[in-house]
Amino acid sequence: MKKINEVIAEIGDLDSDLMGKAQERLDNLTKPQGSLGRLEELAKLIVGITRKESPTLKNKVIFTLAGDHGVTEEGVSAFPKEVTPQMVYNFLKGGAGINVLANYVGARVIVMDAGVAVDLEPHPDLVIKKINYGTKNITKGPAMTREEAIRSIEAGIEVFENEFKKGIDIVGTGDMGIGNTTPSSAIAAVFTGKSIETLTGKGAGVDDKGLKNKIEIIKRALEVNKPDPKDAIDVLSKIGGFEIGGLAGIILAAASRRIPVVIDGFISGAAALVAYHLEPKVKDYMLAGHCSVERGHKIILDHMGLKPILDLDLRLGEGTGAALSMSIIDAGVKIMTQMATFKSAGVSEKVKQ
Amino acid sequence: MKKINEVIAEIGDLDSDLMGKAQERLDNLTKPQGSLGRLEELAKLIVGITRKESPTLKNKVIFTLAGDHGVTEEGVSAFPKEVTPQMVYNFLKGGAGINVLANYVGARVIVMDAGVAVDLEPHPDLVIKKINYGTKNITKGPAMTREEAIRSIEAGIEVFENEFKKGIDIVGTGDMGIGNTTPSSAIAAVFTGKSIETLTGKGAGVDDKGLKNKIEIIKRALEVNKPDPKDAIDVLSKIGGFEIGGLAGIILAAASRRIPVVIDGFISGAAALVAYHLEPKVKDYMLAGHCSVERGHKIILDHMGLKPILDLDLRLGEGTGAALSMSIIDAGVKIMTQMATFKSAGVSEKVKQ
Repeated sequence: MKKINEVIAEIGDLDSDLMGKAQERLDNLTKPQGSLGRLEELAKLIVGITRKESPTLKNKVIFTLAGDHGVTEEGVSAFPKEVTPQMVYNFLKGGAGINVLANYVGARVIVMDAGVAVDLEPHPDLVIKKINYGTKNITKGPAMTREEAIRSIEAGIEVFENEFKKGIDIVGTGDMGIGNTTPSSAIAAVFTGKSIETLTGKGAGVDDKGLKNKIEIIKRALEVNKPDPKDAIDVLSKIGGFEIGGLAGIILAAASRRIPVVIDGFISGAAALVAYHLEPKVKDYMLAGHCSVERGHKIILDHMGLKPILDLDLRLGEGTGAALSMSIIDAGVKIMTQMATFKSAGVSEKVKQ
Repeated sequence: MKKINEVIAEIGDLDSDLMGKAQERLDNLTKPQGSLGRLEELAKLIVGITRKESPTLKNKVIFTLAGDHGVTEEGVSAFPKEVTPQMVYNFLKGGAGINVLANYVGARVIVMDAGVAVDLEPHPDLVIKKINYGTKNITKGPAMTREEAIRSIEAGIEVFENEFKKGIDIVGTGDMGIGNTTPSSAIAAVFTGKSIETLTGKGAGVDDKGLKNKIEIIKRALEVNKPDPKDAIDVLSKIGGFEIGGLAGIILAAASRRIPVVIDGFISGAAALVAYHLEPKVKDYMLAGHCSVERGHKIILDHMGLKPILDLDLRLGEGTGAALSMSIIDAGVKIMTQMATFKSAGVSEKVKQ
């Protein structure tokens, strides 16, 4: 827990002075004030986060963390659990959705094994920080020990710190883990206090019967484990996942280094909740990449006061929505740093009314 | 009118066979079916429009058309009309919002004088197709003659055709013209039948009093001119603008060449309405880049059955929203053409339920 506490202690406030300066600059660009809406908001936020007057978002990194879930025994997913390692290999070969979108927006993808149920072949682009061979079945007891929960967060911090040394300007979160919408819904229910029904969706594609079963399973998991909403580590350990803990660590570490962190979909949202309930300040460093189709994602974002950038009916995870929205965030920064001012362009300003 | 009719005659149907093949390919990619939502929809639409199984959107072009409006005499805009030519020079120097965003997404910007009130300095990147020195004040009579309306559309067709020869894969529409939300609201009212109040917003930033005045001015313009909603050329000539006519021409020409055309904000929406009421089929070739803050834009898009890609509180025009959304459309195409299939990646498919 020491490493986590040290990271949390480093999370400071946004730089409101520099954000004021950014607003002034934005207001002097050759456009009606505020007419580039969220692009302007995002640019200003990036200034506040990074403490740089003219930030650049050249080094984009997506962390895609994989983990397995014992609860798949209960038939909560439409896909077999072998798909988790198969998709990790797909990431490493560059054939997955996240590879295509990250490549398109100029981001590199760091793939981490946080707790896949089988040993993976070593690969130069694979970071292995396996906490355990998948979580335990949460309908029968805790997903992991408290110590494993802490280690999963620390593993995320470590993978971030390692990449930070190489240069990072903006980070996106991503996940892969068959069954992981189930613990994510459970986490969301504990932290937001909303009903499991409103927070549980069809994940990768169960049918109506499957959805009903999934809701029952989550109810049972909460009854059996009684996670304490005031203790985020308790919640993570009892009903979480290793990739969820790892992503929470990445989010905290990014905030401590003043690096903007783009939250992807539902699972990343659950990880963000864990980070937020460890240290609410971390929220200032988060940008919500998109609004997922998965029920409950909107509730998670509202709980933290985050407004999604994109709304494109995505529900894939992997970091795909985060990657795509990075191009919007970067566009906002470019508007702020590259547009001409009324003065420099010799354009008349608004008439006083 | 001959040129317009020839272009309209060339507008065919989408290729539904190829769209079916695209759907099949999308369904075999390593992701739950449909989980990339609108990215998949957009990719399939691009296949149907272009009739290419593996389209590429390398050559992106934004057409930004400028024109002045006699109705500015009535105090409908927060900016003086000199800003129209000043902004054209800003486009040519690369300092405007559209320059920054087009550059970011890899699009080239074609600037056209469709009817600026003053003569502009020649510039290698400026296409001069001035129909007249601004429109007439629409509270006192028609904006332009019927012949000028036809010529403005034909000018758009010509500028498109000229660029088409150099290679175009996707087109975006953009506008610049102080006062041009006023004719756009008037056009929207005539074609959609909705009230002027619901269709009129603050444009570049008039205050509440200014908005009230603007609504009165539009009402007067419709009373004085009585445009016939069944005759799109009549509507354009009586209450339109030269840049609006030009953009309608570009939209028709793009559809006739099977080039996807991304509609920007409110003024582009009004131009799209003119094109759509000349030939409803053109709608299949349009993509709505974003939903503008300007009241009425949503109503225009709904009228044509278009769903915006982005919703970022933009209200600048120039083609900025179109440029930005091109990167989303292109991302969809890249998903379709670059992702691995379940078979090629050796990933297990969904379990039969």
